Amino acid sequence: MSLLIRGGTVVTDSDTYRADVLCDDGKIQAIGSNLEAPQGGEVIDADGMYVMPGGIDPHTHMQLPFMGTVASEDFYTGTAAALAGGTTSIIDFVIPQPGQSLLEAFETWQGWAEKAATDFAFHVAITWWDDSVREEMGTLVRDDGVNSFKHFMAYKGAIMATDDILVESFSRCLELGAVPTVHAENGELVYHMQQKLLAEGMIGPEAHPLSRPPQVEGEAASRAIRIASTLGAPIYLVHVSTKDAVDEIAYARQQGHPVYGECLAGHLVLDDSVYLDTDWGRAAAHVMSPPFRPKGHQEALWHGLQSGNLQTTATDHCCFCAEQKAAGKDDFTKIPNGTAGVEDRMAVLWEEGVNSGKLSMQEFVALTSTNTARIFNLYPRKGAVQVGADADLVVWDPKGTRTISAETHHQNVDFNIFEGKTVRGIPRHTVSQGKWVWRDGELRAERGAGRYLERPAYPGVYELLKRRAELNAPTPVKRA
Amino acid sequence: MSLLIRGGTVVTDSDTYRADVLCDDGKIQAIGSNLEAPQGGEVIDADGMYVMPGGIDPHTHMQLPFMGTVASEDFYTGTAAALAGGTTSIIDFVIPQPGQSLLEAFETWQGWAEKAATDFAFHVAITWWDDSVREEMGTLVRDDGVNSFKHFMAYKGAIMATDDILVESFSRCLELGAVPTVHAENGELVYHMQQKLLAEGMIGPEAHPLSRPPQVEGEAASRAIRIASTLGAPIYLVHVSTKDAVDEIAYARQQGHPVYGECLAGHLVLDDSVYLDTDWGRAAAHVMSPPFRPKGHQEALWHGLQSGNLQTTATDHCCFCAEQKAAGKDDFTKIPNGTAGVEDRMAVLWEEGVNSGKLSMQEFVALTSTNTARIFNLYPRKGAVQVGADADLVVWDPKGTRTISAETHHQNVDFNIFEGKTVRGIPRHTVSQGKWVWRDGELRAERGAGRYLERPAYPGVYELLKRRAELNAPTPVKRA
Amino acid sequence: MSLLIRGGTVVTDSDTYRADVLCDDGKIQAIGSNLEAPQGGEVIDADGMYVMPGGIDPHTHMQLPFMGTVASEDFYTGTAAALAGGTTSIIDFVIPQPGQSLLEAFETWQGWAEKAATDFAFHVAITWWDDSVREEMGTLVRDDGVNSFKHFMAYKGAIMATDDILVESFSRCLELGAVPTVHAENGELVYHMQQKLLAEGMIGPEAHPLSRPPQVEGEAASRAIRIASTLGAPIYLVHVSTKDAVDEIAYARQQGHPVYGECLAGHLVLDDSVYLDTDWGRAAAHVMSPPFRPKGHQEALWHGLQSGNLQTTATDHCCFCAEQKAAGKDDFTKIPNGTAGVEDRMAVLWEEGVNSGKLSMQEFVALTSTNTARIFNLYPRKGAVQVGADADLVVWDPKGTRTISAETHHQNVDFNIFEGKTVRGIPRHTVSQGKWVWRDGELRAERGAGRYLERPAYPGVYELLKRRAELNAPTPVKRA
Amino acid sequence: MSLLIRGGTVVTDSDTYRADVLCDDGKIQAIGSNLEAPQGGEVIDADGMYVMPGGIDPHTHMQLPFMGTVASEDFYTGTAAALAGGTTSIIDFVIPQPGQSLLEAFETWQGWAEKAATDFAFHVAITWWDDSVREEMGTLVRDDGVNSFKHFMAYKGAIMATDDILVESFSRCLELGAVPTVHAENGELVYHMQQKLLAEGMIGPEAHPLSRPPQVEGEAASRAIRIASTLGAPIYLVHVSTKDAVDEIAYARQQGHPVYGECLAGHLVLDDSVYLDTDWGRAAAHVMSPPFRPKGHQEALWHGLQSGNLQTTATDHCCFCAEQKAAGKDDFTKIPNGTAGVEDRMAVLWEEGVNSGKLSMQEFVALTSTNTARIFNLYPRKGAVQVGADADLVVWDPKGTRTISAETHHQNVDFNIFEGKTVRGIPRHTVSQGKWVWRDGELRAERGAGRYLERPAYPGVYELLKRRAELNAPTPVKRA
Repeated sequence: MSLLIRGGTVVTDSDTYRADVLCDDGKIQAIGSNLEAPQGGEVIDADGMYVMPGGIDPHTHMQLPFMGTVASEDFYTGTAAALAGGTTSIIDFVIPQPGQSLLEAFETWQGWAEKAATDFAFHVAITWWDDSVREEMGTLVRDDGVNSFKHFMAYKGAIMATDDILVESFSRCLELGAVPTVHAENGELVYHMQQKLLAEGMIGPEAHPLSRPPQVEGEAASRAIRIASTLGAPIYLVHVSTKDAVDEIAYARQQGHPVYGECLAGHLVLDDSVYLDTDWGRAAAHVMSPPFRPKGHQEALWHGLQSGNLQTTATDHCCFCAEQKAAGKDDFTKIPNGTAGVEDRMAVLWEEGVNSGKLSMQEFVALTSTNTARIFNLYPRKGAVQVGADADLVVWDPKGTRTISAETHHQNVDFNIFEGKTVRGIPRHTVSQGKWVWRDGELRAERGAGRYLERPAYPGVYELLKRRAELNAPTPVKRA
Repeated sequence: MSLLIRGGTVVTDSDTYRADVLCDDGKIQAIGSNLEAPQGGEVIDADGMYVMPGGIDPHTHMQLPFMGTVASEDFYTGTAAALAGGTTSIIDFVIPQPGQSLLEAFETWQGWAEKAATDFAFHVAITWWDDSVREEMGTLVRDDGVNSFKHFMAYKGAIMATDDILVESFSRCLELGAVPTVHAENGELVYHMQQKLLAEGMIGPEAHPLSRPPQVEGEAASRAIRIASTLGAPIYLVHVSTKDAVDEIAYARQQGHPVYGECLAGHLVLDDSVYLDTDWGRAAAHVMSPPFRPKGHQEALWHGLQSGNLQTTATDHCCFCAEQKAAGKDDFTKIPNGTAGVEDRMAVLWEEGVNSGKLSMQEFVALTSTNTARIFNLYPRKGAVQVGADADLVVWDPKGTRTISAETHHQNVDFNIFEGKTVRGIPRHTVSQGKWVWRDGELRAERGAGRYLERPAYPGVYELLKRRAELNAPTPVKRA
Repeated sequence: MSLLIRGGTVVTDSDTYRADVLCDDGKIQAIGSNLEAPQGGEVIDADGMYVMPGGIDPHTHMQLPFMGTVASEDFYTGTAAALAGGTTSIIDFVIPQPGQSLLEAFETWQGWAEKAATDFAFHVAITWWDDSVREEMGTLVRDDGVNSFKHFMAYKGAIMATDDILVESFSRCLELGAVPTVHAENGELVYHMQQKLLAEGMIGPEAHPLSRPPQVEGEAASRAIRIASTLGAPIYLVHVSTKDAVDEIAYARQQGHPVYGECLAGHLVLDDSVYLDTDWGRAAAHVMSPPFRPKGHQEALWHGLQSGNLQTTATDHCCFCAEQKAAGKDDFTKIPNGTAGVEDRMAVLWEEGVNSGKLSMQEFVALTSTNTARIFNLYPRKGAVQVGADADLVVWDPKGTRTISAETHHQNVDFNIFEGKTVRGIPRHTVSQGKWVWRDGELRAERGAGRYLERPAYPGVYELLKRRAELNAPTPVKRA
Repeated sequence: MSLLIRGGTVVTDSDTYRADVLCDDGKIQAIGSNLEAPQGGEVIDADGMYVMPGGIDPHTHMQLPFMGTVASEDFYTGTAAALAGGTTSIIDFVIPQPGQSLLEAFETWQGWAEKAATDFAFHVAITWWDDSVREEMGTLVRDDGVNSFKHFMAYKGAIMATDDILVESFSRCLELGAVPTVHAENGELVYHMQQKLLAEGMIGPEAHPLSRPPQVEGEAASRAIRIASTLGAPIYLVHVSTKDAVDEIAYARQQGHPVYGECLAGHLVLDDSVYLDTDWGRAAAHVMSPPFRPKGHQEALWHGLQSGNLQTTATDHCCFCAEQKAAGKDDFTKIPNGTAGVEDRMAVLWEEGVNSGKLSMQEFVALTSTNTARIFNLYPRKGAVQVGADADLVVWDPKGTRTISAETHHQNVDFNIFEGKTVRGIPRHTVSQGKWVWRDGELRAERGAGRYLERPAYPGVYELLKRRAELNAPTPVKRA
């Protein structure tokens, strides 16, 4: 089945030009003027619209077992919602229990993901350490197409990676050509503050942001970055939410260290006043970690995106419905952490970024797909409008509008943190593997159509890192 | 005449891949695997080499009348030397005398440039102000393909642009969709320090850097950036040479302002100890403005390139021979300011940047051509390896070596600031307008082959700036 | 007449301790425990209160002729109000017209100030330049006790000092051992923005802050600092109002440059929303330069005070009543610039600084008197609680409260920018020259009691600067 | 016995003035002009000299058992050497073994210190954690005059404090009104780098700095500061040696956090080239942690002192002779860490700081005694020239010179890291407890004359911290 996208303006991370795009056999077959519609194929009229790479959300947690429950969004419903939002790939997380085999966990998640409607990949979390973990990291990289490992610096007593683990694991990543990533919050501080607040009678959602103030993220960002830079490894910070962390990233990048930062759509537009909502359910629905931040931090995040200190946008899509959130009714530390967004990310970024004059269209594409594809070595298969690339495309209508609401979204959750926001600029059509899966409001997501994406080791940044390692190799002083 | 570059690895600012490149009629006709050699055409064997966009030097002064003499390098000799170094386009400067018509000066420079061997463009300097200047700026942009204007914040009593001129001219640039650029040094301070030093008996070249210390550049950088950002205009700083200026650029970029910085090959590798040379001639040969800087600033410039705060590299190629320099024998302020480098820039940047693990090959291409092409709206005609782009290419041999010397260089000047430096990585072949003009040591530059490059107004950054201007339009408070 | 302050806690910039303070003959005669009340003298019961140096306001404009009118507060009414607020000295400004003799202007102001109730000194403004100005600066320093000169970088076409004047005047200050000070706003930009806004129909007070956005101050701060540091001079920035300027000061101080910053009480607590008041009079009453700033800048100023990057607090007390402000009814650029505060500064700083946990009491004293005294070489005569120092003291009642209002203040103006603010902590008693002039609500200011304060040249910072100048003296390279 | 210091110029952290100083009964009895010599008392002629508070070295390790040996300098020899250098008080460290009672260790150190010739105090290290440690901290603060606790973030497997301990101990300090201090290096990274270097055959002293690069300190500085600021505690960083850490301190201070930094005399003047000495003994003699740093960091430390971001100077005096250092002949990690300096600190700081125009005399006093006294609540008993203060004074001769050498120093160690440096400005006389113990080259230190200094809890900074804690107390949201 072939598909012609006709009359649109192609927008990539570096160019804007009028062209038709022909897709066939799941790939982009041709880009050019006045391409002919393939016989029997379909044609999308993209007149007045932008043809861009489909979004890649590098941070989702579909059907995650977490805090005694399981995220309400599964790999099918979540990826279907993604398609409705213009996102055609996700990178989810395999999170082994401490002590559990990485390979075993990887198999489990692969099983869950079989029903995915979009292509998908996995970061694998390092939640404990021994020689078997080191070995299995090698297997995952060499045999299973994993090139990134996640480290939770928070969640003491559960999946927290302490400094010794960070040092070992980052070193191992460096040997393997993989990218270490971190959830940057100081777990000891969070734990301490949680206990302190509870002891003071602060049990509601308003205590959540107080238990993990901005410095807690700034600290962990600094630590992860400096451990990585000491070892000579790259580092990727997920969900950067504070000025503190952006400043740490900028500080390191200005010294030439390869540090990457990811930003969530929610953190860009919401602040911590949501936790003061007198409706417990609404307040609790916003509980995620890191929390929404005091006013001022949002501006710092935008500046991070504008200046190139932050390179990707994501959602940390992790859905829990009201009844699940209610587990923390009397203890905010028991509220399952997570919010949705995989469907809304691109439109929110367009509205608040492009329409507001903060971001160019090139930057929009870079931030929603291309940079992620480069950092995690999916490029140019993903994140590109090139002949030979996967035909994962979104046809963006800058004139279309939509008012976001839990009532109308496709996400399998009863709340939307962007409720009521009207966006100008919407994904009119989405093409995944060359198939027209989102047709102006009609969702034709196919259960199980998604493929696992093998990501080769040694993404581009390693070209530099290898050279630096050679040049920095120590030599002994010759002494009599 | 067609030309096939076979067996190389194409390197652009975003990609590295094996491909043959077919040039015909001055353009790139095809990029692909196993392209067939055109009948009667030539073939370059690029096995083991990198095929990159030809360099663009955005800052040269060929045959410039300056300080009572004329630069020794003319548009032919200079562009020929450029080709030997892998550079296939230059942007030179039209510098009207105060009071002189911009159009008249533009004609003069066009006449001089007719003999150029590479394509060329012109920034036009704003050295004075009245309504006719404002008018002629419009003519130059609309009719003559000029989209950038240069402002010297130094050279008091000659071509210095004071704040009132900067404000007027930047505002005019904004109306026209042009990019204001500045030579950032505080001219009043320089003048004062020169007089003070001379009065103290400091007449040798060692007084030159003392008369324009780093703060003098930091000051002007801050001023130009803040004038531009207040007005809502972009700004491009030529020859950024100090940590002070890099810090100012970073500060502004981290707040989302579109600020660009250019860095000279010389400033990246030399420091101000050159002025202490006990041989007057050697010391004087290094006199240029801004001067070479104290140790430490070089590292800051590299960090600027690595972090994206500096986007382009140039040379400020402006040649004066020993006998010309001698004019300042008894007064350092009379030494003609300028050094060469158009032939050496790319090799120096490769050696010191890529070989040292500071820059990736992608960054090398971005910094030597693509970013300049984007900022000054020559992209993708220049700075790209794309079908349809001009066939300006360099075939880079990472294994080749060369020891730079005035004895062997093609530049028409008797001194080389990089004398004795051995570079590993050289331009083995250069292709200009599809012609093989530098063949492994044989220079076939053609006098007059170069064309004037019209640069359209409204480069990409204006997409953002227009949107911001709309959103920031002030509205009066309604009062009774 | 002697006066014993009994039972209080002495607070200086470095110490807090219980002690009685005995004043006689205008001086502090003794500090100690259980001092005996002098026969026939008065006794102030300071139990539960703090005994601190009387405030010094380093920035006032009493009865200033400005913008076609004259400030409503004269030297008597203004200094009387100061006493009611705990401030016992002011430094006002002599502002010669361009072309006018500095000495002549100095005489004029001295005449006006004869009626002052507090001691006073003068900064002298440099509003033009020729050799006579240079000469008269010398006379003022040597013969007239002036050790600081003010430069307006704004007010184009009136009193603006351009770069050439700044360079000349700062150099002259350095020769004389004086401190150059600046009003840091780029006058060219302000002028341009004013014209642009008026042309766009923006004629109301809400255009005032738009005509001088934060970058305009950041620019001038950077410029003044770097001119000073290039010359080796100290520099003092009056009324720092933006994060931009604080950042510039911090940047310079972190490199060891002697840069001082002053902050106004108003800028610490008000933001630019005041200009959106739908009551024209109220909006206009807030028109001063620099304007009140967008939210966020206030926090940066507090941080500046806390970190030592800002050293003094002032008011720029310059009063215009509603009918005077009305001159700009149809053109915001004609609204006389100025607000009051000499009476309120200390209480506002206590309430918002000390009570809020931002400042210690030591810092409060340093910021309200001691630092000013040191910088401008009035210490330890002023700004100290020491035997031999002038008996200018305030007895501060941390439990007293007052609600600030134009209805009750002693300032001769019909508006108070702090209207309605309740402060906890008030000057219960003020002692000036050993006399009890403010007695728990009763003002006994004496017309003409104030003396002119001669300030010797070469304040402490010059110890460093002289040594640096010697060490940095250039030496020629010896060449054959 | 009384003592008159006649004819000198008193220099404190805030003033410089001519005065005689009379000491009696161990205290300063009078400060004034033309004081009369006490009958039978001694007189020091201080004409042409400066009379300053005796130095306080806040960081020494006399007779420390460490790395299998014991520091060669004991409490008598070390404090005697201190007196010869103008230093009249030290703060040493009680370092319990993990598991050992703090009180027991405190007793041990008290016993060792009985022979001290100067007054002394102790920081107590927290090297492990359980409830008994928490309890004993309370006892030490309440009963034993300890108000500061030290945390080693390095020395994994020995005395390293991990994050959980830091959080617990800093919180406890906050409850008790004590100051937490840290040795800021990431112990996990150091350990990892040591093993890696040894495995690579890097066994010599040149591997020492490679095993603990600047980021390792920057990381720990950031962590300690942010843990403290999250908890609302002050924090003091010992031996700050890198730009990285100074930047972290500046960042925090600019946000109003009470962060203090200490700097060692050695780090200010030496760089890491010392480890490349081809004489193993000389290289090893410089092994201390943190190590001497690459060029550039020294300048950052000076800037830290100048800008107020660093407040104190110290030595980390910890002496090991050549035969002790030889324990690490085949393994740099076994070289006992430590260098001397208690005798040289003040003269080095004068020469390199005051003579070079970097520091004023006021700053010199603040940095050598007063700031330490304030931070650790010894002021004004120590660090002040005030009536009633301890008569610990140094009479400084700015014209005297001395060439530092292990051959002539009084320190009980066979090496001096400042060997050969000539200082201009020396302690001509030292007075301790009112006794003339260093008389122009003659050392009359008295074994056991030193007293233990009890330091009360709640130093000045707690005034602020308490107020902030009250204001920041959380309150629950009221919900139905």
